[in-house]
Amino acid sequence: MKKKIINQILISSDHAGYDLKNYIIHHLEKKKFKVIDLGPFNVNSVDYPDFAKKLSKKITDKKYGILICGSGIGMSIMANRYKKIRASLVFNLTTAKLAREHNNANVLVLGSRVTKRKNALNIVDIFFKTKFLKGRHLRRVKKFKNV
Amino acid sequence: MKKKIINQILISSDHAGYDLKNYIIHHLEKKKFKVIDLGPFNVNSVDYPDFAKKLSKKITDKKYGILICGSGIGMSIMANRYKKIRASLVFNLTTAKLAREHNNANVLVLGSRVTKRKNALNIVDIFFKTKFLKGRHLRRVKKFKNV
Repeated sequence: MKKKIINQILISSDHAGYDLKNYIIHHLEKKKFKVIDLGPFNVNSVDYPDFAKKLSKKITDKKYGILICGSGIGMSIMANRYKKIRASLVFNLTTAKLAREHNNANVLVLGSRVTKRKNALNIVDIFFKTKFLKGRHLRRVKKFKNV
Repeated sequence: MKKKIINQILISSDHAGYDLKNYIIHHLEKKKFKVIDLGPFNVNSVDYPDFAKKLSKKITDKKYGILICGSGIGMSIMANRYKKIRASLVFNLTTAKLAREHNNANVLVLGSRVTKRKNALNIVDIFFKTKFLKGRHLRRVKKFKNV
């Protein structure tokens, strides 16, 4: 069921999120998701906006994304510059659920310095199995384009 | 010192954030900040993107903002649609500090359903007294405009 809705999960990070990115990729591949790693491919220092931009441009209706930096804040700012992106900085299971139910989030953002590995995997699992509630939430989400 | 850098703090919310908004206004006014309440002015249901938009359009170099909705996610998505906005969804003291130090955040976003009142006030205090670190962080923040 999930694989029909979500064809691919794109993932990217900065150096601070590099280890957590690899950990999440391993977890998602074990669950049979098709994951596309957009880098970085080593721990050298990079600028997070470059990777937020790279991923955001590739998101489509069936391609979701995950972005990771130290706090999640920088990735969230840059990704949401793009009108088709609804990037949601999530730090616990409640916000993982609300991001999908209320905001129809298509990019999950995590802060590697403030999210434990086990918690991050639980967040990923909840995020990708929760459905958008539509109704009044759809009216609000449509307004994201009225800039 | 703070009053010279920050002339005004604009604040807005949706219905879910209404009570916390009033609580924070009271706190900031006690600390002699000039606070401009952009509404809503009652607890009737509203659409958060309307209030994120209203506030974001009024932010200038010396005017900072606070936005509150249930999770903080919807406000964060909408505010960051505007290139001059660096809206940061914050849930603890570490991320409050990082938002200013690394991302030069000019809008603090809070989730009223996931942030206790006392914690919210501590976050506000840290946020408005922490300075941007510049250096490599300035290079990254400048890239927020390269959409």
